[in-house]
Amino acid sequence: MRQGRVITLLTDFGNQDAYVGIMKGVITRINPSANIIDICHANPPQDIMNGAYLLFTSYKYFPRGTIHVAVIDPGVGSARGIVCVETHDYLFLVPNNGLLSFIAGKEKPERIIQVTNRKYFLPAPSNTFHGRDIFAPVAAHLSLGLKPRQLGTRVDRLECFDIPKPHYKRIGHIEATIISVDRFGNLITSITGEDIEGLKQNQKDIEVTVGKKKLVGLQKTYTDVKAGKPLALLGSTDFLEISVNQGDAQRYFGVKKGDTVCIRLLPRKK
Amino acid sequence: MRQGRVITLLTDFGNQDAYVGIMKGVITRINPSANIIDICHANPPQDIMNGAYLLFTSYKYFPRGTIHVAVIDPGVGSARGIVCVETHDYLFLVPNNGLLSFIAGKEKPERIIQVTNRKYFLPAPSNTFHGRDIFAPVAAHLSLGLKPRQLGTRVDRLECFDIPKPHYKRIGHIEATIISVDRFGNLITSITGEDIEGLKQNQKDIEVTVGKKKLVGLQKTYTDVKAGKPLALLGSTDFLEISVNQGDAQRYFGVKKGDTVCIRLLPRKK
Amino acid sequence: MRQGRVITLLTDFGNQDAYVGIMKGVITRINPSANIIDICHANPPQDIMNGAYLLFTSYKYFPRGTIHVAVIDPGVGSARGIVCVETHDYLFLVPNNGLLSFIAGKEKPERIIQVTNRKYFLPAPSNTFHGRDIFAPVAAHLSLGLKPRQLGTRVDRLECFDIPKPHYKRIGHIEATIISVDRFGNLITSITGEDIEGLKQNQKDIEVTVGKKKLVGLQKTYTDVKAGKPLALLGSTDFLEISVNQGDAQRYFGVKKGDTVCIRLLPRKK
Repeated sequence: MRQGRVITLLTDFGNQDAYVGIMKGVITRINPSANIIDICHANPPQDIMNGAYLLFTSYKYFPRGTIHVAVIDPGVGSARGIVCVETHDYLFLVPNNGLLSFIAGKEKPERIIQVTNRKYFLPAPSNTFHGRDIFAPVAAHLSLGLKPRQLGTRVDRLECFDIPKPHYKRIGHIEATIISVDRFGNLITSITGEDIEGLKQNQKDIEVTVGKKKLVGLQKTYTDVKAGKPLALLGSTDFLEISVNQGDAQRYFGVKKGDTVCIRLLPRKK
Repeated sequence: MRQGRVITLLTDFGNQDAYVGIMKGVITRINPSANIIDICHANPPQDIMNGAYLLFTSYKYFPRGTIHVAVIDPGVGSARGIVCVETHDYLFLVPNNGLLSFIAGKEKPERIIQVTNRKYFLPAPSNTFHGRDIFAPVAAHLSLGLKPRQLGTRVDRLECFDIPKPHYKRIGHIEATIISVDRFGNLITSITGEDIEGLKQNQKDIEVTVGKKKLVGLQKTYTDVKAGKPLALLGSTDFLEISVNQGDAQRYFGVKKGDTVCIRLLPRKK
Repeated sequence: MRQGRVITLLTDFGNQDAYVGIMKGVITRINPSANIIDICHANPPQDIMNGAYLLFTSYKYFPRGTIHVAVIDPGVGSARGIVCVETHDYLFLVPNNGLLSFIAGKEKPERIIQVTNRKYFLPAPSNTFHGRDIFAPVAAHLSLGLKPRQLGTRVDRLECFDIPKPHYKRIGHIEATIISVDRFGNLITSITGEDIEGLKQNQKDIEVTVGKKKLVGLQKTYTDVKAGKPLALLGSTDFLEISVNQGDAQRYFGVKKGDTVCIRLLPRKK
């Protein structure tokens, strides 16, 4: 016996109000078998970049056919547009505001539909809570088999912002950005495993400067250093991560999201 | 293939303990097909009024037949009574302490049952965690088709507090209360769309005084003003809402839940 | 119509990231019918003792056959080992780091399997996110009927720490520890109902010293004292609990988790 189709929810609605519960009610009233899974609702208010990062790190772990709904939507009620984006394995239902910027760097959308067909909205949608009035009912109808093309007309343009990339300042010297700080205080930087792969071929050690402190070398896992000690490693999201074993790197280094981290190549120690 | 019946949970148990998970365990052991949906668990401890407001803004978005369970229950273990309340479309299972005050203002309960039949409780219920020992198992049995009348005897009295209403101080001058502040810092006031409809027939502009600041006119949506600027609008819950576009109105105006907001009619600008 | 088997999740991943959602995606991709229930994700980072306590207070309220997954795992990526533990009614999938310490005091594990069979992991598991790469897929396969013995070889040793027990200092004088502080500020101590049962046979009153304040006698429920007043009672988890009716005992007494509470027998008042 199979459950219904999966709908994920990623919002900045937080957990102190009923907004997320209301969206689930709307979905369930239309499709009682929908399998609704929360990705995260504590995204900082209006922080599209953070939402784009969270969606990027999670979308591909869900079953094929999952409908990913992300509502971080400072432009709600304006002319910003809502799009339904098809990729090979997934559907995304998002405001057209950059929430797919990281994902679009990995895989090309197969089709982008501007969502305008009010037949699938709640009656008399509000101007301030499209999560309830548009995103939830449209996602529920999609989960019942509605085709994206029934939602509106095809468009070409998916809004994307420039995702943070490391800057190669000079040979062997890179500047990167802290793109996310997680619950543990781990600093996730814009340097990818691929970037590091390129560096490692130089057969040199890596020195990472965070705030006023320096780290030498990459570790495999947190416990490669003693409790309370800092380290750099390739994290589970395939970005270079700065951590403190059983500690909080954000507090340790006194830095925050958006700050710069520098990487420099050193001659490998013998 | 249909999922089982929906049970919603609204509590002040927070997310740091296992209390909510335990309730879900109890429900699932009795009815493995129950479709449990969280409305909110971060209701301020013992704040019945806030819980009543959250339940009011969400209940009607759920499927007909949904069992709404709300446990904000400072009188747990006392003689306060637990009631199962039937309305046309829903069942509510709540301590009889005012949690249905907003809803009762909209629709008359068809039947109120005092829940006393220990057959549907966990054995040896505690005095301090009725969510686990009474609400969860009773809700699970209801979701399997148990009739409310099997839970106890019919009573007449549903406890309700006076829900905050705007005060008409003199012609064209209204005092209202901030009944809720949401995650974004939006201030939700006790003035309804209907109240505003009445005012608008006067063909005058509205001036809203919040703390020491004044706002003129009603907007349609947040983006009708520039980022960082304040506005008043009719919110998604049909109450007058004070917001700051991409900002936090609570911080902007320096006010809090329970504070007063004044509305005054102005001659419409030509 | 039955739902699939229940998988519970207890972690210290918090709610601000996508980590928990990702685990649910992995599980659902392998078993779309799995019934995933959150126990708690706000466990303090790396606090194994707190996680062990939360699991202990909740596991037995779930259906027989439930797979309890707990990932509070400061040793992730090290040689700490992951175990699948069978008890009479449940399966537990945990790092072998003490998370079952409270439960093991109640019921003897029937079998302990060291989880090593990479066939049931995600391909190329990371060193830092075993929740996604090992715990989630293994739990999903278990929920489909995989036998624990297919996960690895049987081992004897389940790591357990000494769970906090009250110390009998001299006759009628006990020192206990605050093992948990819940959302309401209730102080849960290491004294059990059984300990109290022993004391009560002495036909004497109990005096509890918390911080610099004293309480005499045990109450049945919070409302046995006036709002704002402190009390001691046997809580819903069968531990002695210090509370303030409609207040916050942690703030009232100025104490914190790990602090000592003293119990002394007094001649019963006539």
